Formats: sequence, C-alpha cells, structure tokens
Amino acid sequence: MPTWMELVKAQLPTAIETLQQYCRQPSVAAQHIGMAETVAMVVDMVKRAGGTARVLDDCGGNPVIYAEFSAGEQGNPNQTLLFYNHYDVQPPEPIDEWTYPPFGAEIHDGKIFARGASDNKGDLTVRLQAIAILQANGGLPCNVKFLIEGEEEIGSPSLPAYLKKYADLFRADACIWEFGGKNIDGRPQMVAGIKGMCYLQLWCRGADVDLHSSNGAIVDNPAWRLVQALASMKSVDNKILVDGFYDDVEPRTPEMIKLAESHPFDVDQMRAQLGLRRPLICGDENPNLHVWYEPTMTICGLEAGYTGEGSKTVLPRRAQAKVDCRLVPHQDPDDILAKVRAHLDKHGFTDVEVTQLNGERAYRSDMNHPFVKLVMETAREAYGVDPILAPTSAGTGPMYPFGEFLGLDLPIVSTGCGWWNSRAHAPDESIRIPDFEQAMLHMVLLMNRMREPIRG
Amino acid sequence: MPTWMELVKAQLPTAIETLQQYCRQPSVAAQHIGMAETVAMVVDMVKRAGGTARVLDDCGGNPVIYAEFSAGEQGNPNQTLLFYNHYDVQPPEPIDEWTYPPFGAEIHDGKIFARGASDNKGDLTVRLQAIAILQANGGLPCNVKFLIEGEEEIGSPSLPAYLKKYADLFRADACIWEFGGKNIDGRPQMVAGIKGMCYLQLWCRGADVDLHSSNGAIVDNPAWRLVQALASMKSVDNKILVDGFYDDVEPRTPEMIKLAESHPFDVDQMRAQLGLRRPLICGDENPNLHVWYEPTMTICGLEAGYTGEGSKTVLPRRAQAKVDCRLVPHQDPDDILAKVRAHLDKHGFTDVEVTQLNGERAYRSDMNHPFVKLVMETAREAYGVDPILAPTSAGTGPMYPFGEFLGLDLPIVSTGCGWWNSRAHAPDESIRIPDFEQAMLHMVLLMNRMREPIRG
Repeated sequence: MPTWMELVKAQLPTAIETLQQYCRQPSVAAQHIGMAETVAMVVDMVKRAGGTARVLDDCGGNPVIYAEFSAGEQGNPNQTLLFYNHYDVQPPEPIDEWTYPPFGAEIHDGKIFARGASDNKGDLTVRLQAIAILQANGGLPCNVKFLIEGEEEIGSPSLPAYLKKYADLFRADACIWEFGGKNIDGRPQMVAGIKGMCYLQLWCRGADVDLHSSNGAIVDNPAWRLVQALASMKSVDNKILVDGFYDDVEPRTPEMIKLAESHPFDVDQMRAQLGLRRPLICGDENPNLHVWYEPTMTICGLEAGYTGEGSKTVLPRRAQAKVDCRLVPHQDPDDILAKVRAHLDKHGFTDVEVTQLNGERAYRSDMNHPFVKLVMETAREAYGVDPILAPTSAGTGPMYPFGEFLGLDLPIVSTGCGWWNSRAHAPDESIRIPDFEQAMLHMVLLMNRMREPIRG
Repeated sequence: MPTWMELVKAQLPTAIETLQQYCRQPSVAAQHIGMAETVAMVVDMVKRAGGTARVLDDCGGNPVIYAEFSAGEQGNPNQTLLFYNHYDVQPPEPIDEWTYPPFGAEIHDGKIFARGASDNKGDLTVRLQAIAILQANGGLPCNVKFLIEGEEEIGSPSLPAYLKKYADLFRADACIWEFGGKNIDGRPQMVAGIKGMCYLQLWCRGADVDLHSSNGAIVDNPAWRLVQALASMKSVDNKILVDGFYDDVEPRTPEMIKLAESHPFDVDQMRAQLGLRRPLICGDENPNLHVWYEPTMTICGLEAGYTGEGSKTVLPRRAQAKVDCRLVPHQDPDDILAKVRAHLDKHGFTDVEVTQLNGERAYRSDMNHPFVKLVMETAREAYGVDPILAPTSAGTGPMYPFGEFLGLDLPIVSTGCGWWNSRAHAPDESIRIPDFEQAMLHMVLLMNRMREPIRG
C-alpha cells in the first residue's frame, strides 16, 4: 500500500485544479459579489469529496454551509471533528497593485496567486481533498463536519445566530480553525485561541460648520477636545489609563511566560521588514508576552478639518477617531465600552461620543488538551520540522461564539497552508504549492489519528 | 447733479455682473487652479475702470498685479491711497456641503453665493467700481494704487519679495486693506491691524506600510505619538504649554482693556448662530480681549489611517496634524517654530517632525492717525450707523511686510463688503447685495475726501 505522502502527491493535480476553479469565482462579501454562485460551488465540492451539504439561510446574512462526512466502517462513529472555514474573501482593491489578476488563480514560480488563495479558499480545498484521500483509502477514521460561512471578512455578524440555532448540528469533539501558515523560518505556526475586539468610534462635534481658525481665541475646538480625550486614555509609555481596563486580564502564570519566551521572535528582522522607525513598545520584554497576553488600544484612524496640500486655516466643526481594542480572555467588549464612557465622563469629556462598531470576545483553548497535542504531533510528522504553538492569534475571529454555543471546553486549533508572505488582505495574495501539499498531508495524518478517542 | 448714493445705485447692475464674472473664474492658489486666467481677467477689470496695470512676476510665485489710477485735474496729485486685495481664493472643498455651486455666483435671496464672493473678490470689485464712478464724475480726488496678489490664501509667501523690490512703486500715504464686513447688529467693523501667523505641519511616521492592528501590542503607533505630542502642547483648559510661547505678548494696558470692553460682543448670539455646543473658552472675560490680544494654537487638521465607513483594523503608518498659531505684535513666527521644536524634543517627541508652512508677523496701525479717523467718518456717512474699529483683526494677512517695506508708520485700515455670516473659507460663502452697494458708497466717499491732505 502506498504511503499517505504518496497518496497526497497523487491527489495534488486534482487539488490544484479544484482550488484554481474555486479562486476564479469571486466572492466578496463587502461588495455583495458572487455569494450565491460560490455557495453552489462549495456544495458541489463537498459532494465530490463524498459528503452531504445543507445550505442554512434562515438566520440572515449570507448562507452558512453545513457539510457532513460519516466515519467509515473501520472508523470511530463516536468522535467528530469540526472544520471552520469561510467562502467569502476580502475585496481585491487596489487592483492595479496586483502583479497577476486577483481572480485569475495563475501559477507562477510555484505559487498560486489569487484573492482568497490563502484566506481562506486554500484551506477548505486542502481539507476536502484530504477527506477524499481518506475516503478512497479505507474510509474516514471519524465523523467530520464543516461550518463554512460567508461573512468572515465583514466580521461574521450572522454567525452567532446560526451557531445558536444549529448548535446540535455543529456539535463536535474538536475543531480545526480556518487559517495558518509557515513563518519565515519555514516552521508551521498553529494557534489555540484568538484575541477579542472592541472597535470604537469616537466623535467630537463643535460648531455646525467649519469656522475660520481665528475663532480659536474663543471657540472650543473639537479636534483639541478629541486629542485631549484620547491622550487621557493612554500614557506616553503605552499604558492604557481607562479605569478598570485591565481588571479582567488574567495574571501571567509561569507556564504562560515560559511558553512565550520559548517561542521565536526576531525583533530585528521584524523592524527591518516593516521599516519601523521606533523601538518596539514592549521594551526588553519578550514581544510574545504582549502579543499573546496583553490587551491593546490602537488608534486606527483620525480625522478632522483640512488635511490636503498646504495650509487651510479652519477650526474644524468635528473630529473623529477609530480605536481598536484587542481583548484577552475574560474581557467583555460591552464592559470595555462602558469603562471608556465612564473614563471620558470622569475626565470631563462628556462631549466626546463613543460607540462600539463591533465587539467579539477572546477565546483560548486548553493548551494541554490531547487534541492540541495531536495536532502538533501530526504537524511535526507532516512538515518534518517542529511546529510552533501560540496560545492566541494576534488577529481576531468569531471563535468565542463557537465556544459559547458548542461548549467552552471545545479544543480549537488553527492551522493552514499559508506562508509568511501570503499577503492576506493585500495585493498579490498567494500560497506556495509545496505548503499546500504538506498541509494536505497534515490533515490526512490528523484525521487518521482520530480513530482513537482524543479524551481519556 | 445726482448724489453719490444715486450714482452708486446706477452703477450697481454693472458691478454685480462684473463680480459674478470674476467669481465664476476659479482661482485656487493651493490647488494651482486658474491663476493665469484670473490675472488676465483682473488686468482687464483695471483697464475697464480707467487704470493701467503691470503684471509683476519676477520674484517667484503667482504674479502680483500693480494697478495705478492718477488723480484727476481737480484732484490732489501729492496724495496716494493704496488698496490691497488678492485674486486667489480658498479651496471650495467640501463641495457637497454647498447649497449652490461654489463657482456659480448665483444670486438667491439678495445674496451672491460663491467661493471668493466675500474673500476677496467682492472687495476688489467694490473698489474698482467706486473708482469708475469717481472717474466718470469729475475725476479721481487722489492717486490710487492697487497691490493685488495671488497667494494670500496660502500665506503670501512671495509677497514680501515683491514689496521689497517694488517698494517705490507701491509707496503710498495710506492703505485700505482687503476685507471687512458688518457684524450681526448691522454695524460695519473696521480693523487697524492684523494678527500674525505661524502655521505648522506636524508629521509622525511609523512603519513603511499600514500594519494589521494586532501589531498594536508591540509596534509604536504614529497616531498615538502625534496625539500625545499635541496634547502636551495645550492644556485641557486651553493654555498653550510650549515654553516661552507667551514671552513676547505685550501686557494689556488699561487703554487696551477699555477698548475691548467698549466693543460689542454678543456671546449668546454667537453661540446660537454657529451652533456651538460648548461654552466659549475665554470664561467670564470679554471675548474681545482674547480675539484681539491673545495668541492662539488651533488644530486645523488631523489625519491618520482609516476614516471611512465602519471599521478597518489598521495601525497607521503615519499621522499628520496642521496647527495654526495666531500671533500678536512682537511675536516672531520663526521663534515660535523653534520653541515648538524645543518643546517636542524636551518631552521626548523627537520623532515628531514639525515644519512651518507659513509665517507672518502681526501689525497694528496707530489708532489715532487722521486717516483712521477719516475712514471711520466716511463709513458713518455711507452706512448710516456707527462703525466699529478694532485694533486688530482676528484673521491674519501680510500686513507686516507692508509696514516693513513701505514704512512702519503707514496707516492701514481694513474694511469690506462682507457680513457676519459670509462664511469665508467655508461652504456657502456669500455677500449681501445691499452691503455690496454700501461698501461701494463708502469707498467713493473716502476717496472723495482724500483731496485734502490726511497729515497735518
């Protein structure tokens, strides 16, 4: 009998062709492009891999696809693995910055270039193709389910409703999250959690119209008010000054610190690559401690008055800021909003409005769960190098509702076929074909081990 | 013989038509729009009023127009009045906030709406039409000169060079400045001085590209740096905190305080009209004391990252602010720039760049000069109400170089055809036709009195 690696290699041409077809179908949620066509295509992909699919569309938004594959005769019918993916992609703009057409899925230099190649069409393809291989070679070792949504890139607004209503349908023993990839040293990075988010919009309004700036002698300026309000919320050395902001942050345990410090982080490389002009704000501490365990408060946008060429002497009628707070487990976005409001009021900034544009809680799997260890073990085997496990992704996603409705003890690990320069959300998004192949092998090996119960 | 008022009324239709044509020609110095076409139009307007024009363009920037009209046979050839105007206007943006097209010069409800109608095309038209009336009715009572520049709205960077080179050409016994208008009580306001300006551009730069905001845990954010730097420069109660900023501000004398307190200022009316949401920042003090005698520091613009609809999770690569400091006599813009730089350095903001986009010193005429009194007397006659004289305009302009090159004892008074809601620099700029007519009469009466020597 051929090895799993040989079987994966034999499947590769079909897998590539499937992915190209999938990527050539635009599916931009923010622009309402191609959603129905993409749903039909995904349903067909599920069927071709030997599964059944249900299109759920009764809780609003773009449809959620439920897919199901049963354990084979020699499989374990009492164990279920859930995959989370999304079929929507980021807008391709700015299109003129792409070297190859964003929906062309052209192959150049061993890479497939397409919007969605890495985020998140490559990973769905990898998983379905891995299932097809297992089906054709002795049957599935466990039950497999998929939740494939169509609004991830716009913040998954409808997903919690579907998870709530269809919790029984999606129930599983473990979950593989949507994405992942290799770092610059070629080591695959997995994460077992995700940060939350409280995205705030602040407005300060002064007069009904922009005024001549000579009025600055007597008229209060909303741009100054906003600047002072923001400055009151974070110190020059980057401590968040909002009362109670850190209350729910769990103290770092020795285990957490050890994990962070054992994880590679090349500060000089990062600074050189991004062209950073200033030192990192974590001082001498290991950056992982901050990326993983610290909440943030980031000004994402500022706007007031005139910002074009040269000078215009106006006293702006209004000023706005967009502020993104990345949250850690136990922080609640609504509570953070309330604390920011209280802070503004306490410091006299009752005239500064604040609203929450979106909020998601953080999620972190039990790092010692046998499933987490199994994902790592099979990754080591598939990739031939030591994978890296982080307790949390720096990014955000709807992981918390999975826990909320399917069980807060659900072990969730994210892994995928991307690479360090996959450029998700940017022009020239790509995956590398050898990574795609290894990710498929990883999924075959992982599912193959799920014949045995992952819980004692 | 008809009265001057009748002659002005007869001239009004021509004057309006001339102004409409002039306003329909865009002339935005900041955007390099329409400068050559506007120069040609102004030269033509001068010739039609019976004068000669020279286009001076050998000192850089947009051309300066010198216009000359000689005293008639019964006039005083030994006395010269100089008018200062500018043919450039502020950018019309935001265009979608205009009720009528900014370069349409449409008449609605007795008002002419156009960018530049009040600032400063209306006043040039008023003055040339007044001259035309005098020419046609006995000749000019004195020599008249004009300096009409094309860079006032971008801070008159080239004007001093022209004034220096052509000082002999522009020499005069008195000067009428570009603008003015009626207050809310219908009283024309004149000013005998002007505030200076130090307009600053601040930049703070982080990475080479916008980053995913998850990097906020470790990467320093130029938007936060800029906010903190700005907040360090002005207190929440609007005191400027830059060391030495107030050093050269002259103490208020009892005469200055008396003048300010005798000058009307209706705070409630102002707040209601502008829709101000906050109290004035001068507390219980008379606002005139601040508008006339206090320097300011105003944020005119702020920009960083994403400011469109909804949320985008970016850590901006750069942030900018535009800050306008209005100066009082004896303050030097270059010195203010140096003090701001020193402040930023002292507070650790060496990464915040600051440059001066334009700088001008303040100017204040001798309030007891006979010319100042003559302008007031003829205004009373033309408007039929008591005019108001302020020692300084809240706005800025290049008055100081006029003094520097033509004599620091040159009496300069500003008066014009605007009204309290003319919205110079804002959408829906307008003048009212009855004001336009009265301003023309005022200029006729003033020039008519300049047959007699204004100095002992």
